[in-house]
Amino acid sequence: MLEEKGVLFNLLRFLHKGLSLNRTRRLLRMRKDTFSILLKQAVELEVLIKKNGRYILSRKGEKFIRKNKPNLFRCNCNIGFKISKEILLKAKEYCKLRVVPNIEIDQCPTKPKDLAQRIAFMYENGDLNNKRILCIGDNDFASLLMFEIAKPKEVVVIDIDERVLDIIKKISEKQKWAIKTKKFDIRKFSQINYPKELKERFDVFQTDPPYTEVGFKYYIALGMVALKRKGTCYIVAPHMNLENWSDELLYEIEKFLLEYGFFITDIFPSFQTFLDKYGIISSIIRAERTNLIKEPFSALKQLNIDKFYTIR
Amino acid sequence: MLEEKGVLFNLLRFLHKGLSLNRTRRLLRMRKDTFSILLKQAVELEVLIKKNGRYILSRKGEKFIRKNKPNLFRCNCNIGFKISKEILLKAKEYCKLRVVPNIEIDQCPTKPKDLAQRIAFMYENGDLNNKRILCIGDNDFASLLMFEIAKPKEVVVIDIDERVLDIIKKISEKQKWAIKTKKFDIRKFSQINYPKELKERFDVFQTDPPYTEVGFKYYIALGMVALKRKGTCYIVAPHMNLENWSDELLYEIEKFLLEYGFFITDIFPSFQTFLDKYGIISSIIRAERTNLIKEPFSALKQLNIDKFYTIR
Repeated sequence: MLEEKGVLFNLLRFLHKGLSLNRTRRLLRMRKDTFSILLKQAVELEVLIKKNGRYILSRKGEKFIRKNKPNLFRCNCNIGFKISKEILLKAKEYCKLRVVPNIEIDQCPTKPKDLAQRIAFMYENGDLNNKRILCIGDNDFASLLMFEIAKPKEVVVIDIDERVLDIIKKISEKQKWAIKTKKFDIRKFSQINYPKELKERFDVFQTDPPYTEVGFKYYIALGMVALKRKGTCYIVAPHMNLENWSDELLYEIEKFLLEYGFFITDIFPSFQTFLDKYGIISSIIRAERTNLIKEPFSALKQLNIDKFYTIR
Repeated sequence: MLEEKGVLFNLLRFLHKGLSLNRTRRLLRMRKDTFSILLKQAVELEVLIKKNGRYILSRKGEKFIRKNKPNLFRCNCNIGFKISKEILLKAKEYCKLRVVPNIEIDQCPTKPKDLAQRIAFMYENGDLNNKRILCIGDNDFASLLMFEIAKPKEVVVIDIDERVLDIIKKISEKQKWAIKTKKFDIRKFSQINYPKELKERFDVFQTDPPYTEVGFKYYIALGMVALKRKGTCYIVAPHMNLENWSDELLYEIEKFLLEYGFFITDIFPSFQTFLDKYGIISSIIRAERTNLIKEPFSALKQLNIDKFYTIR
């Protein structure tokens, strides 16, 4: 089991090269609890030794690594992006204003640096400046950071939580940013009950949905209807090593995107982490709409809305 | 047209930040000829000035950039990977041994640094050490570099070109590397005519097929049949800005993978460039097999084999 996906080798190799436990966990794409089990197993296998809270390679571990060419090709940045101090400070500032997460509706705050990285990624793709952008759920205040980093033409934020919308509204009014907020329960999204003023209005949508198949499909479907031809989307999706549910969820998301005429241009693993106790790690998906426009309402009808949030 | 996909803004921004023309073209994901047209248009729009063969921003260009927050979040590495001098030298050494490309069978050499980066990426994912790997087509000698970087259990190379196989065989015998070579015309791949000894044997396959839908489907189908459950694949696929054919091809490749039970874990754009006059830029796709095993032969039957290579 430890050999699966080269996990043990990479664990030893990263620690051998002096990478921190945090960075090692991130590169291995593991939840905190899975990573703890892995470390424990490595100690039991006598390839790691725990000493004063640190893990170092035993002789056996060193030998294992040395005979396997322990190169390291990773750059210190995360997948080609660096966040400036100035932007990081802004992200942290907004982070302090966030509401207390309501776990019943899967609010799970992104780490400020990772949120900034997401917005930077959109910016570098030319998907922020002069664009109309829809944020589907925004307890992270991605919308505000977009204006710190770039000059969107317009940002619309949809959320169920009035606390979130009120803060965004207050700040954007003060800054004179073109942000509109809209309270909407995405579970109620259907062919007869959708915000018609959003239809085919946006160049870009971005979202970090509840981590269920139903949650993803509803959030993405709303974005699909709101997007213009040739529009682009950014979707945060969990993907962790040794967790089959995240493989299956990723598969379902990708199938859903392709079925409704999107093709995927980028998937960067381990791009987002969160301030939660589980230490979830997520990928970012960027997709573009082909010329095909197909409405996703019939797909939603087949879903059980009780499985919308992860807690049920 | 220039505003499309934020291309003009990014062109000016990258040049404004002092990036070289080469790096700018790569980040914009453009063929050489498309990039030349873009530069020419920017000069006509009077946002760029050509001076002693260099392009600099005009006042108008500077103004356009300044009012749009010209941040730069890119790291100098390419999507998180750095290639050591030692490995780069090895890649260049093998590169010199490559055969004269036969463009009739779409042989198009990868730049040594980019080839090394591809192998490094496989290595960092734990997909080389101790694995059985299939190289479908290998005029780049990816197989040889795999052994320089890691310790695969076994590598099998399939190619139609005996010149390629002979060189790989000679070097691997000298180095005592576990490489097997097999001459096979992938156009002949079908349910009754496939190398049965390959079936469900490999942990990983990697390929950079001819850039046609038929070429991709044949190459990938061969890999699918050869892969074990939970196996992984690496596919190089063109993806360039403003080129619809590469959007459509990417869409077809992704649909094909998903239909046959693979989900995509990573897509890194602008990951591979080539020593050709067109300056093609390609993405790397990493995908994993789900538990579903579905044979791709019926899909191949519907394809017109005359459209296998790009020259027809």
